Amino acid sequence: MGISIDYDRFVETMQEQAKIGATPEGGLNRLALSDPDKAVRDWFVDQLIDEGLEIRIDAIGNVFGRRSGSHPNAAPILLGSHLDSQPNGGIYDGALGVIAALEFIRTLNDEGIKTHHPIEIVNWTNEEGSRFQPAMQGSGVWAGTHDIDIQYEKSDEEGNTLEEELERIGYKGDAPTEPQEDYESYLELHVEQGPCLENEGVDVGVVTGVVGFTWGEMNFTGESDHSGPTPMDSRSDALVAAANVISQIQRIPGMLGERTVGTVGEIKSHPNSVNIVPGETMITWGFRDPDDDIVQKAYEMVVSEAKHAAVREGVELEYSETMRSSSVEFADRCINTAQSAADELGYTSTQLISGAGHDAAHLASVTDTGMIFAISEDGKSHSPQEYTSWEDCYKAANTFSNTAYQIATNHSN
Amino acid sequence: MGISIDYDRFVETMQEQAKIGATPEGGLNRLALSDPDKAVRDWFVDQLIDEGLEIRIDAIGNVFGRRSGSHPNAAPILLGSHLDSQPNGGIYDGALGVIAALEFIRTLNDEGIKTHHPIEIVNWTNEEGSRFQPAMQGSGVWAGTHDIDIQYEKSDEEGNTLEEELERIGYKGDAPTEPQEDYESYLELHVEQGPCLENEGVDVGVVTGVVGFTWGEMNFTGESDHSGPTPMDSRSDALVAAANVISQIQRIPGMLGERTVGTVGEIKSHPNSVNIVPGETMITWGFRDPDDDIVQKAYEMVVSEAKHAAVREGVELEYSETMRSSSVEFADRCINTAQSAADELGYTSTQLISGAGHDAAHLASVTDTGMIFAISEDGKSHSPQEYTSWEDCYKAANTFSNTAYQIATNHSN
Repeated sequence: MGISIDYDRFVETMQEQAKIGATPEGGLNRLALSDPDKAVRDWFVDQLIDEGLEIRIDAIGNVFGRRSGSHPNAAPILLGSHLDSQPNGGIYDGALGVIAALEFIRTLNDEGIKTHHPIEIVNWTNEEGSRFQPAMQGSGVWAGTHDIDIQYEKSDEEGNTLEEELERIGYKGDAPTEPQEDYESYLELHVEQGPCLENEGVDVGVVTGVVGFTWGEMNFTGESDHSGPTPMDSRSDALVAAANVISQIQRIPGMLGERTVGTVGEIKSHPNSVNIVPGETMITWGFRDPDDDIVQKAYEMVVSEAKHAAVREGVELEYSETMRSSSVEFADRCINTAQSAADELGYTSTQLISGAGHDAAHLASVTDTGMIFAISEDGKSHSPQEYTSWEDCYKAANTFSNTAYQIATNHSN
Repeated sequence: MGISIDYDRFVETMQEQAKIGATPEGGLNRLALSDPDKAVRDWFVDQLIDEGLEIRIDAIGNVFGRRSGSHPNAAPILLGSHLDSQPNGGIYDGALGVIAALEFIRTLNDEGIKTHHPIEIVNWTNEEGSRFQPAMQGSGVWAGTHDIDIQYEKSDEEGNTLEEELERIGYKGDAPTEPQEDYESYLELHVEQGPCLENEGVDVGVVTGVVGFTWGEMNFTGESDHSGPTPMDSRSDALVAAANVISQIQRIPGMLGERTVGTVGEIKSHPNSVNIVPGETMITWGFRDPDDDIVQKAYEMVVSEAKHAAVREGVELEYSETMRSSSVEFADRCINTAQSAADELGYTSTQLISGAGHDAAHLASVTDTGMIFAISEDGKSHSPQEYTSWEDCYKAANTFSNTAYQIATNHSN
């Protein structure tokens, strides 16, 4: 009924990609459009050519390879993820999804299987958002969420623009940066980047959607006074106001949903000297939940808390929401097919919603979309400690391949 | 009975020194042993020479000028403060004390007054502690608190050592860096750097001592996880632990003394990215109180709170006290003489303890010491907003001069 990808070749291919941009700690430094990203793209294109795929590179550097189907008018199924990494990232992350898709194609070729639907494999540009913002840039442009001309102007810390870097590494292609036909579906495999699968003790995760989120920044402005002679009741301490909000951001999730998370990831304080009452403090907020109403409620609560903290400490508050993303629900038929694939392979699984953003969230506005998660041991990602055993990688890749296989060979779609 | 310094010349001299290292915002950038510090030292030495003083520069750059007294064996009275500033400091700070002492000498010379006691004027090296640590370095060495060879090795952010910079600007003198005779007393004038005098609506402050303090650093180490997929109960958030301690440091003073202050001046968090749970956070603490037992109690409370916060958040704690300074009580006879001087001049005054450290705190271990404060409007200091009206500067300088005059002319000491 199903297919089975080759364990040894799959692991070898994972190890091969992990050499490109490898760090001494065993991780990856393969920032979007850097030299290592060019190298891994070149390597990836070679693999696609070896498999006889028709290569297409679009104007934002997304790399597609197409394998034709047996039916001339059948809609293509799109499979992929991303090969770029964080500056000190791990070797699994999105690469696992790209390599799984490649192994699926190789298996079809080895076995001479002709699928009803054409199959496209894709490596999306700049999923990480570390060198250029926003994250999921290539898929966002392709899905029509972002304007390419605006994205071209985005620059890294050295002032290099995205467009210049695309040209420099030779990946500003001429294919259109939007779908030219209806797609049958999009499937993506990624590591979970969280501890849920491991905690539940299952082999793979079937992803039902992606949480919505709000990100923002708030700045408190008080008075930078000498910390010795300034009595407590004469102070306007920006850091104390910020600290109260940090504590509250940890508490807000407990008042909302079971899956709500709230984080202050970034803080900057000025003048940041042991002997001076902080006059200016900036913190970020981030809340995520599968329910957009809860995200909105978290936003309202953090703004309210910040206003109260500012009044209590006698400081000024400015705040702005820097990003809001609605939650995404994946297509039932993709979820069900992935679930069947896991079941038929005899892998234990659970259905879960993704707490992290993925290219699949953009694709869900283009076509029916599904995702599969591999275990992340200890929930670690974006670090050299990111780890998924080869057995767990294989189970996830095999589940992914069988899901794709079932959809690609279905004549009724 | 008393003397009266010349208002116009005093203001002009204050304005003259304020040009050396002036910033566009109207403040000073006269870091210890920088080119502007050399320039103001050169200017200061010229003034001392003009007044016929005997110049002495010691091996840590403290500049002394001596005016002989009428009695050959009478102990000298030492008057001074510091001319260095913070990188973005104000024009009053310690300069007010040095210029007041200079004007006092000029007034004695103008009026041909011979004092019983010799008078020395001093500009201490590196009171600010901004470029080289610790603060109050020159007076600390001279008073025997610090070892000069250790201080010579201290370096600024560019790696220049104190000794190299003393040599570079020509202020590594050959006079001994310790008292060569018994001193009659030390008097210092400084701006308050706090709001108490203004709040009480008085002209000048008579300082009774300097608070003790504890400074320290604590580091929390948790786990840097992706903020999306990591549930709240799987986190070890270093910043949340730190925030709880920041809140508590604001509350500890209210549980201790009326004059206790507690401050977190500095915070650093890693990796400091909106999308990552903070894995490492460092904060400083600072507590001050006139009562050393209360300082010790504050230290114990903050360490206890930090340990509890670390357990609550599941993070590791390391902490160390970086400095502890005992409180200082000034000499009753200096306090009383200063009080009489203010009263006789018809200035309103209050007695207060200094919340900031001063060179006078080191000098109190050498000789009977007293201090006078000028008003700091809005309590501002170490910024271009530092402001004391010329009238208030003059009242403080005149109180200082008359205090010095009474002691210097007292034959019974």
